Amino acid sequence: MASYLRAQATEFLRALRLHRETGGGSPARADTRGGAASGAEGAVDAVRALRRSARRISGSLHTFRPLLDPAWSEEMRPELAWLSGTLGLEHACEARLRRLLLALQRLSGSGSTVFPAPSVNSTAVAGAARSADSGPPVQAGPERGNLTVGAAKAGALLERQLTLARTRAHSTALQALGSARFHAVADRVAVLASEVPLTPAAATTDLRPLAAAAEERLTNAIATLPLLTAGHPYNAEALIHGLSPDPSPHPQDGPWHQVRLLLRLHRYAREVLHGDADRVDVRLLAAGQALNRHRDASEAAAAAAQAARTPRIAPATAYALGVLHADQRLEVEAARFAFQQSWLKQPVSAP
Amino acid sequence: MASYLRAQATEFLRALRLHRETGGGSPARADTRGGAASGAEGAVDAVRALRRSARRISGSLHTFRPLLDPAWSEEMRPELAWLSGTLGLEHACEARLRRLLLALQRLSGSGSTVFPAPSVNSTAVAGAARSADSGPPVQAGPERGNLTVGAAKAGALLERQLTLARTRAHSTALQALGSARFHAVADRVAVLASEVPLTPAAATTDLRPLAAAAEERLTNAIATLPLLTAGHPYNAEALIHGLSPDPSPHPQDGPWHQVRLLLRLHRYAREVLHGDADRVDVRLLAAGQALNRHRDASEAAAAAAQAARTPRIAPATAYALGVLHADQRLEVEAARFAFQQSWLKQPVSAP
Repeated sequence: MASYLRAQATEFLRALRLHRETGGGSPARADTRGGAASGAEGAVDAVRALRRSARRISGSLHTFRPLLDPAWSEEMRPELAWLSGTLGLEHACEARLRRLLLALQRLSGSGSTVFPAPSVNSTAVAGAARSADSGPPVQAGPERGNLTVGAAKAGALLERQLTLARTRAHSTALQALGSARFHAVADRVAVLASEVPLTPAAATTDLRPLAAAAEERLTNAIATLPLLTAGHPYNAEALIHGLSPDPSPHPQDGPWHQVRLLLRLHRYAREVLHGDADRVDVRLLAAGQALNRHRDASEAAAAAAQAARTPRIAPATAYALGVLHADQRLEVEAARFAFQQSWLKQPVSAP
Repeated sequence: MASYLRAQATEFLRALRLHRETGGGSPARADTRGGAASGAEGAVDAVRALRRSARRISGSLHTFRPLLDPAWSEEMRPELAWLSGTLGLEHACEARLRRLLLALQRLSGSGSTVFPAPSVNSTAVAGAARSADSGPPVQAGPERGNLTVGAAKAGALLERQLTLARTRAHSTALQALGSARFHAVADRVAVLASEVPLTPAAATTDLRPLAAAAEERLTNAIATLPLLTAGHPYNAEALIHGLSPDPSPHPQDGPWHQVRLLLRLHRYAREVLHGDADRVDVRLLAAGQALNRHRDASEAAAAAAQAARTPRIAPATAYALGVLHADQRLEVEAARFAFQQSWLKQPVSAP
């Protein structure tokens, strides 16, 4: 376990160095175009690697808590959670926008040329500054209520709103990476890379019961999911509160998000025990992907509903956002079905 | 076959008599309330029975064409199609409205009291005369873009539009039943009840090859359906052109509607051969129900999209109609899945 933590800490420091080398620290990155693209890509990779090891360190601190110095561990975990949350937001906004624009394109018919291809990376902050619902340069027919124009306008509205959110998330991430708080985390990780603060009893403690407990938390949480319903296709569960007065109308998503986190902790615990990430359990991988898709679709559906609350939008725009919202809630339902299928495919292999 | 036609013709005449006795001919029916309800119900049953036998007579004329006097048969079929089409429209509008209001209620959350229960039968023509999108008496919060108010308004809009359509369909049906054209059909059916105009060769002709040909037309049409795709749940096929610029964006529905008609002809041909409707093939029944659901959801989705084109509706109303449209397209997809499942469940039993 100590060697796993040391390895993850080393990965963290390597990613941090890579991030500095690729100019990721420059606040001009949001306006980066063309020439600096490879540098920007490197910075994106570096941030991803930073989050990856931060999650793994944090997860191990949680699962193998009894083996680690409690004071150190308790102080470290919230800092790692803050870091990976802050660094993940920009990517999440970008992925959400891409998902929604692709869905709009699919809904407009694959052969349609009216709706422009997703252009997440080429959209600058300028786009976000346009006034609400001014719409893209689309050749609209003279007839009222043209629903395709609605799709294009909905896409433009989402692009403005999510690009703005992404730009803000990017600034926040840059500020975080330059903050004293971050440097304190990085210093602690640097210490971790050479010396893991274990308890005296750690050397003689068996890791397997702790890993088994993580797995049990996962299986217990899965047991509370409505898997029987999820296994019946087209059960219409995910959309059932789509027009509910509740401001957060999908509390049903919560337990699935929770299982997603527990599945990740289980996977990391397996990595600690088996030493190599190569020995990937296909079933766990498929289940995890289904839950990622569930989370992404759930948040994309919420973003579409949120955009529909923008004042003064055209009815055709609102209609397209309604179709889009329902489409993403359907994706939520499909992801649950996929999880049910992959999870019940074969019994849990012993760790 | 002749006895089957005679029996159906007798049913037709009985339904016609019932319709006259229950006051179905009175043009006041659309305003009928309370006391006259049982009479109105009887009239509805009578119209359903009229359509039922008209469809069966027409179907038999088609499948067993070579056995019947061609001139008589060619003249009779379009008249029966006109009749059952005209008589079916009112029921279709009513069922469509009920389906859409129930869907809106489901989408608003089952425990919601904001959205009123479907009230198809209690809504009079007066409702249709209200101005577009004036909305129902719902206690709306002061905040803009309240999506639940959107659901209630969408429901009210659909109720007005479909009630108006239903009222028109009712008038048209009444006019049809009082027309010279209808009396000519009824006279022909009366003749059919006693004497079926067979060809000289009919007495020695085997019915089975003709019934087998009807079945073959069905299986050939089913072979062209994308059943492999339909068998994969959540394939997102049915919604794919939901925001397409095409004015009739779902040509993909056509082949399924065609199979629905061919399945019905096959079922009627089996009735002719086996003499009793009791010997129902469960598989055919389930497949037919799936295709009825497919047709109903397809038309309901189109009605929601059509309502969204109403000028000057609120964005929240349009949003709710978009969600509703997508929900019904999902029903279309679910119906295809159900058809695929029921059809492939067991091999075709020999007639």
